[in-house]
Amino acid sequence: MSTEQKKRVAGKHAQEVDKIEVSGAVIRRLPRYFRYLRELLRQDKMRVSSAELSRMMGVTASQIRQDLNCFGGFGQQGYGYNVPYLYSKICELLGVDSDVRAIVIGAGDLGRALVRSPMFEKRGIQVLAMFDIAPEQIGREIAGVKVRSMNELAAYCKKHQVDMAVLTLPKESVEEVAEQLSGYGVQAFWNFTSKEIKLGDGNAIIENVHLGDSLMVLNYRLARRRAEEKEPN
Amino acid sequence: MSTEQKKRVAGKHAQEVDKIEVSGAVIRRLPRYFRYLRELLRQDKMRVSSAELSRMMGVTASQIRQDLNCFGGFGQQGYGYNVPYLYSKICELLGVDSDVRAIVIGAGDLGRALVRSPMFEKRGIQVLAMFDIAPEQIGREIAGVKVRSMNELAAYCKKHQVDMAVLTLPKESVEEVAEQLSGYGVQAFWNFTSKEIKLGDGNAIIENVHLGDSLMVLNYRLARRRAEEKEPN
Repeated sequence: MSTEQKKRVAGKHAQEVDKIEVSGAVIRRLPRYFRYLRELLRQDKMRVSSAELSRMMGVTASQIRQDLNCFGGFGQQGYGYNVPYLYSKICELLGVDSDVRAIVIGAGDLGRALVRSPMFEKRGIQVLAMFDIAPEQIGREIAGVKVRSMNELAAYCKKHQVDMAVLTLPKESVEEVAEQLSGYGVQAFWNFTSKEIKLGDGNAIIENVHLGDSLMVLNYRLARRRAEEKEPN
Repeated sequence: MSTEQKKRVAGKHAQEVDKIEVSGAVIRRLPRYFRYLRELLRQDKMRVSSAELSRMMGVTASQIRQDLNCFGGFGQQGYGYNVPYLYSKICELLGVDSDVRAIVIGAGDLGRALVRSPMFEKRGIQVLAMFDIAPEQIGREIAGVKVRSMNELAAYCKKHQVDMAVLTLPKESVEEVAEQLSGYGVQAFWNFTSKEIKLGDGNAIIENVHLGDSLMVLNYRLARRRAEEKEPN
């Protein structure tokens, strides 16, 4: 998308997003549609039926129709969905390319992995800087993003508008740092420490990521399979 | 836990787990209980009321009673829950310490971050080895785990019983490698590539992790907040 297009989408988003009420459960499913539609676009597919989408995504066609109806339902009988249109609508609804500026706290393995992935760019999020306390990290560049000292954090946030902080620091200091950042005007937190944070003013937007929970579900399913194999009756 | 205790739990698990039918939604919530109960144990708290647990976890007390009732409900009126007992029951149900052996494919930033985290150890999962194709990675040790060449993968899996593979390789080769591993008897896959894998025999247990989806939900909530601030009516 060009900068002009981005601005248009961002502007439109601000105007339209609050007119559409979509449930939390649907919002959690929309990123999957985003991924699959993006893939269809890459393959130059311009239309898709709910049956095809259903096969690709492993969700029932009726679930798909229901989800997409939630925000206006753009399918046409006998034609299916217009892929670029549906993609742009989902981007708009999810606030893709709405000019979000992020920093990453912690330049360890995980922080680096995140910054090197195309994840932020794909969603139109700009990573401005990384911060760390380890002298051997400070001054490095990860995928074009400079690692700065935590001592610079306050000054940096005052100078640049920072909307989002990605927290990959040790859990012992996560709450203190997040409170600080919140004081500097950071509104959204993507928290990778295993500690769920609650901030004082109650206004912060927080996504706690617990990778261990997903590992545990996998482990459970494996243990269950083994138990079934042992006692088939 | 001692090895003896572990063996006991694993044995018990195999006997009991298939007697309890718990819904997928509850299973997805249990790892949170695991985390909070673990934290209470660390603080030497031996009992907890559903009201306290509710405050800690930000879930209603009735939801907690309902979840825990699903697998036998161990709370007592006026006493609350016995923390070590509840913890051990949840561990058992989730198959913690049931002697799972994992390998990690890909020794890049993400693979290293995962192996260095205490995630596996906390759930009693043993990481046997990492595999990569990059000559500069091969031979390294990450948290005591050796990085081996992908050329050794087949022989290694034949020699050692591998139950689980953590997939942090480029998405272009993920399906091929997962099929291979499945052929070597690997049953469970923790997939970090953005490509959702489906394996030929349909028997594999797969958890696809999409970090980008969580980022997108955060981004959505931020965009929505901004839109609300712009147009308060």
